[in-house]
Amino acid sequence: MSHIAIVGAGLIGRAWAFVFARAGFDVRVWDLDPQVLERLDGDIAAMVAQTAPFGQAGADPDATAARIRAVPDLAGALDGAELVQESGPEVLAIKRELFARLDGLAAAGVILASSSSALMASAFAEGLPGASRCLVGHPVNPPHLVPVVEIAPAPFTDPVITARARDIYARAGQVPVMLKREIDGFILNRLQAVVLAESLRLIEQGYVDPQGLDDTIRHGLGRRWAFMGPMETINLNAPGGAGDYLARYGRMMAGLAKTSARDEAFTAQAAAIVGSAFPDTATPQAIRARQDWRDGRLAALARHLADQPQH
Amino acid sequence: MSHIAIVGAGLIGRAWAFVFARAGFDVRVWDLDPQVLERLDGDIAAMVAQTAPFGQAGADPDATAARIRAVPDLAGALDGAELVQESGPEVLAIKRELFARLDGLAAAGVILASSSSALMASAFAEGLPGASRCLVGHPVNPPHLVPVVEIAPAPFTDPVITARARDIYARAGQVPVMLKREIDGFILNRLQAVVLAESLRLIEQGYVDPQGLDDTIRHGLGRRWAFMGPMETINLNAPGGAGDYLARYGRMMAGLAKTSARDEAFTAQAAAIVGSAFPDTATPQAIRARQDWRDGRLAALARHLADQPQH
Repeated sequence: MSHIAIVGAGLIGRAWAFVFARAGFDVRVWDLDPQVLERLDGDIAAMVAQTAPFGQAGADPDATAARIRAVPDLAGALDGAELVQESGPEVLAIKRELFARLDGLAAAGVILASSSSALMASAFAEGLPGASRCLVGHPVNPPHLVPVVEIAPAPFTDPVITARARDIYARAGQVPVMLKREIDGFILNRLQAVVLAESLRLIEQGYVDPQGLDDTIRHGLGRRWAFMGPMETINLNAPGGAGDYLARYGRMMAGLAKTSARDEAFTAQAAAIVGSAFPDTATPQAIRARQDWRDGRLAALARHLADQPQH
Repeated sequence: MSHIAIVGAGLIGRAWAFVFARAGFDVRVWDLDPQVLERLDGDIAAMVAQTAPFGQAGADPDATAARIRAVPDLAGALDGAELVQESGPEVLAIKRELFARLDGLAAAGVILASSSSALMASAFAEGLPGASRCLVGHPVNPPHLVPVVEIAPAPFTDPVITARARDIYARAGQVPVMLKREIDGFILNRLQAVVLAESLRLIEQGYVDPQGLDDTIRHGLGRRWAFMGPMETINLNAPGGAGDYLARYGRMMAGLAKTSARDEAFTAQAAAIVGSAFPDTATPQAIRARQDWRDGRLAALARHLADQPQH
C-alpha cells in the first residue's frame, strides 16, 4: 500500500504531513526525536482546528488527521512509500548522512525529496547508489497555506523521477515549479533576496521607513502578485503585451536596476532599524500570536483565491 | 466650495477622479483634448459598472458618478480646488510647462500633485514661484483598485503641503507612503525593477520558464505580500523577530543578492522569451479582456482584504 513518508517532523515536516493527508494520501511520519512523534497527534489536531474553518483541512478534517500516523522506526516509515519528504536540518554533513541512510533503506524507485532551501541535491546526493532518485522539493513556510513547491533536480536526477515528483505534488494540491537547472537559492529565495536587499538599503538610507516599505508592497505590488506573477503583470501593462512593455519601459526599469542594492545592504544598522520596527511583537509569544494571525489570513486568502475565476 | 481638480483625463486621471468621488469629494476634470472630456461620463459609468458589484464604487455608486464633472477650461477646473492631481505625459518639458501654467492659475495654498512615476518634483517644479506647493503623488495602475500612493516631495516642498496631501489621499481611502527623500523610481518601481531584473535573467538563462516564475510569486511570495510586506514577513520568520531573522539568515540572503541581476538582464532575448509566453493575449483586444479580468480580480481582492482582521 503506497503512502508518503515524512522524515523529520518539525514545523515543515508536520505541515507536509498535513498537506498530503488533506489530499487523501496516507502518511507515515518519522523523527529522530521520539518526543516530537509523541506530540504529533496534538500538533496535527491544532493544524486541523486552525484551517478547517477556512475549508483548508480537506473534505473531511477528521479523516485528514486520521491518515497521519507516527512511526517509531525509519525503515517502517519508508516501507512501501511512494515518496519520502525529508525536512531535517540544513547542514550539509547531516543531510548527506541522512540521504545515504534513506537511500540504503528505501526500495528502488522510491522518490527521495528534500525540503532544503539552502542545499542543492547535487551537493547532498552525489555519489549515492540511488542518486538518480534524489531531488529537492522546496516548500514555502507554511506549505499547507502557501502552495508553491520548487522542484530542483540535480544534473544526475532521472527525469522520470522528477516528473513523478511533480505529479505527486500536484495531486497533493500544491503548485510545482520546475527548475530546469540548479541554482543557489532556487527561484523563490533569489527573488526574496533582491527585494530584501533593495528594501534594506532604501530603509537604511532614509528614503522610507519599514512601515512605508511594507505598505508599498501590500497595498501596491502585492495586490497583483497575489494572483498573477510579475511576468503577467507586465504583459497587461502595455497594449502589445510583455514584449511591448519591455520595449517601452525596459530601459527605464533597467536604469533603476542598474543601481540596485546587493549584499552590502545587509548591514547591522539596517537590521537594527528593521528589528525595532515591530514593537508589538517584541516577545516570542507575541511573534507566535502574530504568526497565528498570518496563518489565518493565508487560509482565508487561499479560500478567496480558489473561489475566483481564472479567466 | 472645495474640490479636487483632475488635470489630464487619461486612464490614470479618470481613475483618480473615480477614487476621489467615491470617497465623497467633488471632482472637476480637465483635459487638453475636448473629446476626452466628452467621453468622460461614459468612461466613469463603465468604472462604476465594473466596481459596484464588488462594493468598490462607494456607498452610492450613482452619487459617485454624479460628483465628477468635466470642465472645459483649466482655470475653471482649478478655481476653489483643494488639490490638483496632474496626470499628463511623462515628458519633462511638457510637465514643466504644465506645472508653470498650474502654478500661475491656482490660488495660493492649492496643492499641485503629479502622478508622475518617472519624473521627480525637483525636476519639474524647480524655480516656480509656487514650487513649495508641488510634489509627486504617484499611484499604481489602476489607482481605484490598488490603493498605494507614493508621496514624494522635493527638497523645496513645504512640509505642511506634504502633510496636507497625505491627509487628503488618506481621506480618499488611499494608502499614502511617505518618501523622506527623493529617489529615481521612488520605492515601488525600484522594487519592481529588481524583481524584473532577477526574473528576466533566471528565465533567459534557462533556470525556469515565465509560467514557473509567475507561479513562484503568485502561489508563493505573493500570498503573504498581499496583506503584509517583506519586512513583516521576515519579522514573523524567526522567533526573535526581524532582527533575529537577519542575524540568522541575513548572510544567506546577502549571498544570493551578491550575484543578483541588474540592468544587463533587460536583453532582447529575454524580451522575446517573455513576449511569447502569453499566447492567449496576442492581440490588443485580448490584452484588454485580460485587463478587465485583472481589474475584477483586484476589486474582489480589495473587498476580501477589507473584510479581514488586522490583528
